[in-house]
Amino acid sequence: MSSPAASADQPAVWIYDTTLRDGAQREGLSLSIEDKLRIAHKLDALGIPFIEGGWPGANPKDVQFFWQLKEEPLQQAEVVAFCSTRRPGKAADTDPMLQAILAAGTHWVTLFGKSWDLHVVEGLQTTLEENLAMIGDTIAFLRSQGRRVIYDAEHWFDGYKANPDYALQTLGSALAAGAEWLVLCDTNGGTLPHEVGQIVADVQAWLQTQTHHSEERGTPQLGIHTHNDADMAVANAIAAVQQGATMVQGTINGYGERCGNANLCSVIPNLQLKLGQPCLPPERLQSLTETSRFVSELANLAPDDHAPFVGLSAFAHKGGIHVSAVEKNPKTYEHIAPDAIGNRRRIVVSDQSGLSNILAKARNFGIELHKQDTASRQLLNRLKELEHEGYQFEAAEASFELLMREVLGQRPSFFELRGFQVHCDNLPSEAHWKTRSLATVKVAINDQEILEAAEGNGPVSALDRALRKALANFYPAIANFHLSDYKVRILDGRAGTDAKTRVLIESSNGHQRWTTVGVSGNIIEASYQAVVEGLEYGLMQQAHPLASCDIPSTQLGDNPSTPVT
Amino acid sequence: MSSPAASADQPAVWIYDTTLRDGAQREGLSLSIEDKLRIAHKLDALGIPFIEGGWPGANPKDVQFFWQLKEEPLQQAEVVAFCSTRRPGKAADTDPMLQAILAAGTHWVTLFGKSWDLHVVEGLQTTLEENLAMIGDTIAFLRSQGRRVIYDAEHWFDGYKANPDYALQTLGSALAAGAEWLVLCDTNGGTLPHEVGQIVADVQAWLQTQTHHSEERGTPQLGIHTHNDADMAVANAIAAVQQGATMVQGTINGYGERCGNANLCSVIPNLQLKLGQPCLPPERLQSLTETSRFVSELANLAPDDHAPFVGLSAFAHKGGIHVSAVEKNPKTYEHIAPDAIGNRRRIVVSDQSGLSNILAKARNFGIELHKQDTASRQLLNRLKELEHEGYQFEAAEASFELLMREVLGQRPSFFELRGFQVHCDNLPSEAHWKTRSLATVKVAINDQEILEAAEGNGPVSALDRALRKALANFYPAIANFHLSDYKVRILDGRAGTDAKTRVLIESSNGHQRWTTVGVSGNIIEASYQAVVEGLEYGLMQQAHPLASCDIPSTQLGDNPSTPVT
Repeated sequence: MSSPAASADQPAVWIYDTTLRDGAQREGLSLSIEDKLRIAHKLDALGIPFIEGGWPGANPKDVQFFWQLKEEPLQQAEVVAFCSTRRPGKAADTDPMLQAILAAGTHWVTLFGKSWDLHVVEGLQTTLEENLAMIGDTIAFLRSQGRRVIYDAEHWFDGYKANPDYALQTLGSALAAGAEWLVLCDTNGGTLPHEVGQIVADVQAWLQTQTHHSEERGTPQLGIHTHNDADMAVANAIAAVQQGATMVQGTINGYGERCGNANLCSVIPNLQLKLGQPCLPPERLQSLTETSRFVSELANLAPDDHAPFVGLSAFAHKGGIHVSAVEKNPKTYEHIAPDAIGNRRRIVVSDQSGLSNILAKARNFGIELHKQDTASRQLLNRLKELEHEGYQFEAAEASFELLMREVLGQRPSFFELRGFQVHCDNLPSEAHWKTRSLATVKVAINDQEILEAAEGNGPVSALDRALRKALANFYPAIANFHLSDYKVRILDGRAGTDAKTRVLIESSNGHQRWTTVGVSGNIIEASYQAVVEGLEYGLMQQAHPLASCDIPSTQLGDNPSTPVT
Repeated sequence: MSSPAASADQPAVWIYDTTLRDGAQREGLSLSIEDKLRIAHKLDALGIPFIEGGWPGANPKDVQFFWQLKEEPLQQAEVVAFCSTRRPGKAADTDPMLQAILAAGTHWVTLFGKSWDLHVVEGLQTTLEENLAMIGDTIAFLRSQGRRVIYDAEHWFDGYKANPDYALQTLGSALAAGAEWLVLCDTNGGTLPHEVGQIVADVQAWLQTQTHHSEERGTPQLGIHTHNDADMAVANAIAAVQQGATMVQGTINGYGERCGNANLCSVIPNLQLKLGQPCLPPERLQSLTETSRFVSELANLAPDDHAPFVGLSAFAHKGGIHVSAVEKNPKTYEHIAPDAIGNRRRIVVSDQSGLSNILAKARNFGIELHKQDTASRQLLNRLKELEHEGYQFEAAEASFELLMREVLGQRPSFFELRGFQVHCDNLPSEAHWKTRSLATVKVAINDQEILEAAEGNGPVSALDRALRKALANFYPAIANFHLSDYKVRILDGRAGTDAKTRVLIESSNGHQRWTTVGVSGNIIEASYQAVVEGLEYGLMQQAHPLASCDIPSTQLGDNPSTPVT
């Protein structure tokens, strides 16, 4: 990778992703080595130039990660190892933590050091001079081992406000020892954009007065690393770029400790689409939304539907009024074109939906429906009734299509439900908390009754298996359908265990995915409804292969699951 | 309410809350009239000066809201009715929508009008001149009826960029007709802070050149209304205030369409604690966190634990290292004091927890535990095991306390579980989808076995009732315990119906609330575990009334339920 000088091939701003290290520090987030490798490859495909993989000196799992990555190297991104300075009073070249960093075998290393005198004295419990030496020695050592170094100036803004001279001395130490990037970190996350702008401008001015340590590497550059404690992480990153920073460190979906890091899914489109500062190769930008969802899925975190740019609702238009306006001239209501980042406009069907929304949806499903048809109004009324009961079709388009076809008398009938029973028992003589579940299901196909029983890990699993057993002979295709996601939401938790439950099930046949919904005060019943509709819809797809489904095949990528709410 | 001139009693920046109107447009959010009234009173208690209640001319439910509010008026806040301009070519005084606005009987009315020529011509399909008349006539009419008027200039920033002269004419029309506030709205949400700052400065300069329409009301002021489509809503609001805006319109928790509105839970502390611009009476600021959670609960939306300032994780410290540092000198790691806004520091217990975190938690629970005790290490190991199975104690502190006491041999035994059975059946001769649930539970108390059966809306409800029946004679206190929240999370949805489930149950005895957790591949079993521990913990509290619980009584307020994840 060449030095960061402006050229036709180089980004204007270098994106540095720390999802795997800083992002992984989010409460409740835990990534396996396999997850991290998959994410690294996904970020590489997106065109992210720097991917911070972890801290091999502190986390054994990270050592594994860097070694495994060598077996399937990235195509274009540089993977970076993260570490701290040597310890006070110790030498860098005998520090085992630094040995582990070198063993990770990356070209680039990011080192963080203290910028705030308070932290040096109270936190590290050492002298201001020793801290400068720790920074300089560690970088010099890494450089002597052939590594290129990025320096993260921890607590930069608080440190600069408290003691600007000392803070600049810490940067000077990093610069003199050969760091190519000086990244100013708002570690506590409380700085405001106008302060960030001013301080970055000051540092930029200072940088111009410094002798370039390494002529062949070009002028050292400034970077920015922000946190969202004041709800300003993205604004602070942009403010820094506007004062000359050419690297932004952040995470996908803004994951991170406390309130998170700068959300790259917002930083990138703001820079590239609004500020004329390209970061990713132009054709890669449209993979941003898919990357966001891929990461949330591997992280096993619900995607934020209201996330700027990439959220499911980011371009969701509700209410009859401006739906027609936005279709005619999108610019009236959309600040950017959703497909620029791989998202799409959604017409929201809700109990506030006008007829125009229903008709637009019917068109999507390939169903003939006109404003003047009585069925349209019937459908609208049925929709409002069901939504009042707790059904939500925004995320369950397959169920909505089935509903639409039912009202229009076009819903195919593959089987008739004739009842079910499910029994769970927990016996004290077994190992503690071992509960068996047994279900029986009766269906009728062409008036022939079929009764099947099955066991399962739980009641819903038992019902699902029993139902499949019952249908298997008539519909062998269901062997290819499997559930790829199962979500439960309690609709009115304050009703305690009497609360209504809404279950969403995502099914897949390997090519397409579709989502169905069930609602009931009985969680088993709600789950069963969604399972039954999932199988029905799958069978309907088999019969009419080009009917719509909610996930366009272009978004399938290498990960068959796309999260829905 | 006096005119907005600076004085000791007046805020520097007037907060205008539109949670009940703009916030309610969020997908999936639906507030009953009762919910809206409770929220309005809560915002009033927080000290918010303006509360936009709805659009009575467009929504029948809003008409009800304004009328019911008269029966229990707010203490200090002004409630505001929202409306549009009269229709093109029609008169204001005969417009039924405006009649409904007047009937709402508010002192203040907020009117929105078009600032962008494109919207006037393509959207409203009228002339630029007629639009100016629509704005002026409507405001003049409202003023003639004794209302004070706030003018929301819709699509302001896009409109000003496209045709600044026309945009300023629309403002001029509002000003001349008597609007006291001119609120610049970034309706599409795509403007950046430096642009907002520049444009607001331009408008401020223009405003200085205008004749004050109404001398007795003082100088008309500028306000700002932002949306989060570029992840800049809060930054844009602050940038506008820094250029002289003295009103910020936003919502609690940033609720709103698409990516939401400016989050007042971030705007307020940034203004009041960082920029020296008081918005709320100083003693009210500490109610901000509680207000945030109150609103998310009534909205039936999961609280954002990672929200800046008010999120559960906003001041969560993980990892042994800096926990001790932050306790010694909070400023090293916290950008503001959490209790300034009613939040609190949390020491996060997780599988990355060092011993110091466990010890800190034990102290919270009033349990004697020292680093050198073998039990500490046992506890740490047991914790890691359970977390590996899917248990999460961050949000289930009562279960964590029970676990701690169990490892230390201090867990009281109130009853012994001797097994359960639950049976659901769905019979085809009943109305479609009617499922009965029956449970039997066996427990032993002092070696006496008790077997009880109960029916319920669903399997978990049936089990809960059967268990309570079994315990009621020995422990009459459980009649006072009820479940106040029930949450289910599928841990690995990709495993479909075989997925592990984690259930969180919040229980209450009227004074305190506590949360317990259960994990299993069987959703009934997971729920039962959490129910059982909830009852156990409640009984333990009865026996030792000052033992800790996870929600301090000072946060109870008038709404007994505080959401947890």
